[in-house]
Amino acid sequence: MASKTSSLWRALRSYQIYGANTDVGKTVMSTILCKALVSKSPSENVWYLKPVSTGPLSEADNRHISQFSPETRTHCLYQFDEAVSPHIAARSKPPLPDSDILQNVLQHLKSCAEAGPGVTLLETAGGVHSPTPSGTSQADLYRSLRLPICLVADHKLGGISASISAFESLHFEDSHYQNHAYLREYFEKKDIKTIAIPAPPKRNNNDSEDFEMMAEYYKNMSKHDAVEELLDRLTLKHEKRIENLEDMAGRAHKQIWYPFTQHKDVSEKTILTVDSAYGDFFQTRVREGKEENLLTPTFDGSASWWTQGLGHGNPDLSLAAAYAAGRYGHVMFAGAINEPSLLLAESLLGNMHNPRLQKVFYSDNGSTGMEVAAKMALAASSQRYKYNVAKGEVGILGLKGSYHGDTIGTMDCSEPCIYNEKVHWYQGRGYWFDFPEVKLKKGNWVVESPAGMEAALGSKSEYDSLNDIFDIEARNTSSTAKLYRKYIEATLERLVLQEGKTFGALIMEPVILGAGGMHFVDPLFQHTLVSVVRESSNIFSHGTSYPQSDPNAWTGLPVVFDEVFTGLYRLGRFSAASFVQTHPDISCHAKLLTGGLVPLCTTLASDSIYDAFLSSDKRDALLHGHSYTAHAVGCHVANTSLNVMMDLDQSGEWQPYKDDWGVGHTFESTQSESKSMPGKVEIPVWSSWSKDFIHKISMSKDVDSVIALGSVLAIALHDEHAGYTSSATTGLQERMLEGCTQFNIHSRVLGNVFYLMASQTSKPETLRDIEKLLSEALL
Amino acid sequence: MASKTSSLWRALRSYQIYGANTDVGKTVMSTILCKALVSKSPSENVWYLKPVSTGPLSEADNRHISQFSPETRTHCLYQFDEAVSPHIAARSKPPLPDSDILQNVLQHLKSCAEAGPGVTLLETAGGVHSPTPSGTSQADLYRSLRLPICLVADHKLGGISASISAFESLHFEDSHYQNHAYLREYFEKKDIKTIAIPAPPKRNNNDSEDFEMMAEYYKNMSKHDAVEELLDRLTLKHEKRIENLEDMAGRAHKQIWYPFTQHKDVSEKTILTVDSAYGDFFQTRVREGKEENLLTPTFDGSASWWTQGLGHGNPDLSLAAAYAAGRYGHVMFAGAINEPSLLLAESLLGNMHNPRLQKVFYSDNGSTGMEVAAKMALAASSQRYKYNVAKGEVGILGLKGSYHGDTIGTMDCSEPCIYNEKVHWYQGRGYWFDFPEVKLKKGNWVVESPAGMEAALGSKSEYDSLNDIFDIEARNTSSTAKLYRKYIEATLERLVLQEGKTFGALIMEPVILGAGGMHFVDPLFQHTLVSVVRESSNIFSHGTSYPQSDPNAWTGLPVVFDEVFTGLYRLGRFSAASFVQTHPDISCHAKLLTGGLVPLCTTLASDSIYDAFLSSDKRDALLHGHSYTAHAVGCHVANTSLNVMMDLDQSGEWQPYKDDWGVGHTFESTQSESKSMPGKVEIPVWSSWSKDFIHKISMSKDVDSVIALGSVLAIALHDEHAGYTSSATTGLQERMLEGCTQFNIHSRVLGNVFYLMASQTSKPETLRDIEKLLSEALL
Repeated sequence: MASKTSSLWRALRSYQIYGANTDVGKTVMSTILCKALVSKSPSENVWYLKPVSTGPLSEADNRHISQFSPETRTHCLYQFDEAVSPHIAARSKPPLPDSDILQNVLQHLKSCAEAGPGVTLLETAGGVHSPTPSGTSQADLYRSLRLPICLVADHKLGGISASISAFESLHFEDSHYQNHAYLREYFEKKDIKTIAIPAPPKRNNNDSEDFEMMAEYYKNMSKHDAVEELLDRLTLKHEKRIENLEDMAGRAHKQIWYPFTQHKDVSEKTILTVDSAYGDFFQTRVREGKEENLLTPTFDGSASWWTQGLGHGNPDLSLAAAYAAGRYGHVMFAGAINEPSLLLAESLLGNMHNPRLQKVFYSDNGSTGMEVAAKMALAASSQRYKYNVAKGEVGILGLKGSYHGDTIGTMDCSEPCIYNEKVHWYQGRGYWFDFPEVKLKKGNWVVESPAGMEAALGSKSEYDSLNDIFDIEARNTSSTAKLYRKYIEATLERLVLQEGKTFGALIMEPVILGAGGMHFVDPLFQHTLVSVVRESSNIFSHGTSYPQSDPNAWTGLPVVFDEVFTGLYRLGRFSAASFVQTHPDISCHAKLLTGGLVPLCTTLASDSIYDAFLSSDKRDALLHGHSYTAHAVGCHVANTSLNVMMDLDQSGEWQPYKDDWGVGHTFESTQSESKSMPGKVEIPVWSSWSKDFIHKISMSKDVDSVIALGSVLAIALHDEHAGYTSSATTGLQERMLEGCTQFNIHSRVLGNVFYLMASQTSKPETLRDIEKLLSEALL
Repeated sequence: MASKTSSLWRALRSYQIYGANTDVGKTVMSTILCKALVSKSPSENVWYLKPVSTGPLSEADNRHISQFSPETRTHCLYQFDEAVSPHIAARSKPPLPDSDILQNVLQHLKSCAEAGPGVTLLETAGGVHSPTPSGTSQADLYRSLRLPICLVADHKLGGISASISAFESLHFEDSHYQNHAYLREYFEKKDIKTIAIPAPPKRNNNDSEDFEMMAEYYKNMSKHDAVEELLDRLTLKHEKRIENLEDMAGRAHKQIWYPFTQHKDVSEKTILTVDSAYGDFFQTRVREGKEENLLTPTFDGSASWWTQGLGHGNPDLSLAAAYAAGRYGHVMFAGAINEPSLLLAESLLGNMHNPRLQKVFYSDNGSTGMEVAAKMALAASSQRYKYNVAKGEVGILGLKGSYHGDTIGTMDCSEPCIYNEKVHWYQGRGYWFDFPEVKLKKGNWVVESPAGMEAALGSKSEYDSLNDIFDIEARNTSSTAKLYRKYIEATLERLVLQEGKTFGALIMEPVILGAGGMHFVDPLFQHTLVSVVRESSNIFSHGTSYPQSDPNAWTGLPVVFDEVFTGLYRLGRFSAASFVQTHPDISCHAKLLTGGLVPLCTTLASDSIYDAFLSSDKRDALLHGHSYTAHAVGCHVANTSLNVMMDLDQSGEWQPYKDDWGVGHTFESTQSESKSMPGKVEIPVWSSWSKDFIHKISMSKDVDSVIALGSVLAIALHDEHAGYTSSATTGLQERMLEGCTQFNIHSRVLGNVFYLMASQTSKPETLRDIEKLLSEALL
């Protein structure tokens, strides 16, 4: 299990010894520390672990330690005879993946901890970025351990540059040095302790003399004031770290006002303390503090509120953030341009394959991006149709259960619901259609209308596969399509012509309504709704004709797709609009945009929307903008994230998932302007959750229905009071959070819906393990 | 001038040679490149520059180049005889600041460029982080040059780790290597070219033989295929960089929808292309492309929409971003805690010295943070007073010209103005008071009431100094204070008791209303307004009594301070509330919070606000939250930024400014819970803009009035049509943006108000230069 990576034991203080480079004296420093530890606390165990050693056994580092500090219990996990870098030495051997080394290291630490109070020194190989047997770097192999680090450097010319670079690569927590005032001052500013000790004696090439000299040197050094001070500091650090880990939840409870949280239900005990995160896993504090590992891996089951795409602590994204921070910081965006922001705009416009979208507007999160979208659409339609109603009376068309964010303007785009009902300034502005839902029920894919709507929307129909439901071309001529069209047309006529309501936009989340409860909308219904709205100019304009010569200009009403949750590969494709086979006039993207690192949002719009804001009057402009608009860090991270995800898509990384779900159908491409996607294209419908698993759990007596698409899995449990306030999922959620053997699963629920969201880089074996746990809980 | 740091010439291709560490063969590689360049384009100049050289002159690197590539024009700016690191070698000499070296390098590059087509190689000293004579690092000294970089590394054991660490420290654009497949693969993924060439021959310690061997080696290497390929690539890179710089504005014009911008007024020519930014300066594209430096420094006069505190490209903030990105990425915040978010909450609560504030709520920007503040306040007052009005009818109290952000709920907190009047869903909800303004007019500090309000608020009064205006203790018993009180009380009675209006909060920006036009409110008026509102429970409750046993509980109405712009040292103090000598119940902070790097916002609230949301019903909770709530990168950057600013405050860095403005008055501390601030404290009122300068320009015939506080300077020009649509400032703005000799000044204007904002680390000499330019333009 690659996930089990944390190690923090009350009784065992573990430290890693890194070198600023090869041959700076890591082993010498380790020997000094081992001897000092033994003499300081004779009752404690002192362990030395060299996970990977290269070179002849007689010269191995653990041999050296044993010679000069015989009380130290030394151990080496992998020994290669060749005195070369581990990735070369390992070449002729069977592959040795990093996860194997890590698991063995963890196992070793566990056995050290179980043996009673003590200290383990773990000595790495070479420098900070020296390759491991598999070819990644030392820092990447060990960083998820989050052990405090001693960085050893030397006194030679060039030692400063090497040490600082190593520090920047590592950004460690503690260190000691054979070096001088410059580094001491440099690191003091960063609250990092440096110590300098004399160099070991030069060899005389006389083995016994050399041995005596070294023994004498080690004896003196192990009692050196600086070394003693360092040991005290390391012990203090260990205690502080545990203390901090244990009191963070209490301090948070006192000082943090959590989002979307009824604090009456929160106590110090319910708050999850996250020490760090790596890949798909948080490393969290274990609550019941027996004398065991105080940290445990916990699967980030909500993908950190649907943002995670490339895993926590992704080095590519971190480096991208650092690069843009160094090159720009944030640079004022109004009236100016910088490279990352421009490249991101071009990438989004290019890869959406939507000929309508021409312009990109930046903001900070999905909610602000949707306010921008609403402002854009309402201004465009009000201008064209010269709506003559009181301020605030132009509403939007949407779907029941839609939710677009928490700022009040965006809340107004949703019908009254638990999220907004107590917000004094909220006012639902619009009409929200009932819609048929896609569900897997007892092993069958069905499209089901809400209770009471069967006459209007059709009664429950079954499909052979999810693919078939997305075959809009085939379904477009069906009686279902006709029924949908009739229902939508009749509703519009009633609302506008009979009831005199005014509408300015159609706003929807394509395919899956997220926060509203993971409702999977029949794509044919959304497709039909867009078509009917676009053909209904005469209704919205009360009969006046507004012919559009540009085929990409909006007609009827501007169509806004909120892809904040569903877009950018969350459902397996760059854009979720492709599932609905239609092109919105405005499209909003956030969350996965930055791969799970920093906030950023983009609202894409057509020129026909943009043109509505052009005039000689400044007041007609879109007077909206946030200080950090198009901040360079976010844009550069987004470019990196999108490129990595597109590479994953094209490299076949997800092919096993696609194979599991069967090949998608082909259809006549109407949506792609891209030369690389001519004529027929294959649009597979797939999920990283396995097809067998979801069929199996759909049979559970506790389960009402299941959906899975892309990295999303949602399980609706039976509950008489389905909805946000349901408590049907509580038991399942609690069971997943505690007591699993390999790792826990942290989840968020939406009423009776238990959902999990993988990242775009989740390992199949992790997902299969989770499926096993869920199966055990539900079957 | 530290600001002149950019260098990009069409005819001159300049590259920097860095070493992964000392002694990896930088000079050998430079010699090869020089020879190769000479033989490839004999008509071009080849320059070699070693800015700082240490060691005996006979062994100097430029001597070596001259010997083996005599056609190369070599140059060394600073020679130190000792063969040690430059910061040691320079010890006994007069100080040599980095800026001197940089200016000399730029001067040299300029003369190279003026001599016609050619190439300059600039060889650095030691490794990437080796110290400069002043003790900073090579990378920090040269990075603002933004020259493409060749990183030279060696083939020794440990070379991989050193090279990657150096790369991460540097994050360069181009490189070539004496190294092997591992690095090639590593860098290929990052789209960076690596080449490997054979090592030079070993020395025989026979001078003439060695010379011959090296000459032969250089001759062969300069024609090596890999070197030729590298040269082609470097040339292409140069051309692409210029091409990109020149076409970015056009591409942006086609694809970017700018915030707060009437695009009718935008063309390719008006868009500022920002190549990079460093300190207070953008490096921007020079528009009229003669054969001169294509980049010019441009002062970031809006502090990038008021966000900049610690300068662009600040290395501490960059490293903080990288650290948090590596340790966490973003981790789900609801119900969980991580260290940076907790520490930031504690730091803000601790340093506000406001005993009312107990809880921190996170969001993404000032606008969302103010929506949160409004939701908090309205819910608390509606709950206590059991307001029985239609939804949306509880309004807020504020000041005319207030502006709190662009989301619709926040817009609703402002009276109708240009920003919101065309927003269909905007609806001003509340009442906004007239207020007296502080201005420097013709050399005198005055408090002036709006036209027609003199009877209610007093006629114009003069003060000896700005300090006197802030002496609220003294002014509190004045007739002015009584007048203010009477006006406010009468207004409240009329609004609530006579007109039957309902109010739920008092919301203000303390001291300066920013986006509304840099209006400087008389602090005594804001102080009195808060006092009266707090004493008016009986009015808001229509006579019902709600006694509060907790002295920190809100009374009357919750008081919200929008410190998004004015807080966190923008006006010179941690909190702007201290200027008004009152404690808000809710306080909102963003912009400078993250020092100008990434978006983040915090809304601080009292327990008496928080408690209003506690119940056994989830629906009573504050159901608001953004995906990246309390993202670790932003929080860790904010912690770093706040710590640096507090250090600047305490270290006396701003003392020269304080001295310039005279010592502040002392007053009885009512606001500090801190033990370090007992009894009387001195609260100086000062600006980084000089007192003499603002007095001088206030005398200009074009100037109506001036204000300066902290890093803010605002100059109101005479204009019959004052306000957002005024064009009085256009001429001044354009004059500052073009044609200054040392650097240009980019500014944003607010109608007839021209403002400039320094960062908290602006160099005094930069500000004095700017004052000189402004004086010339205005006097």
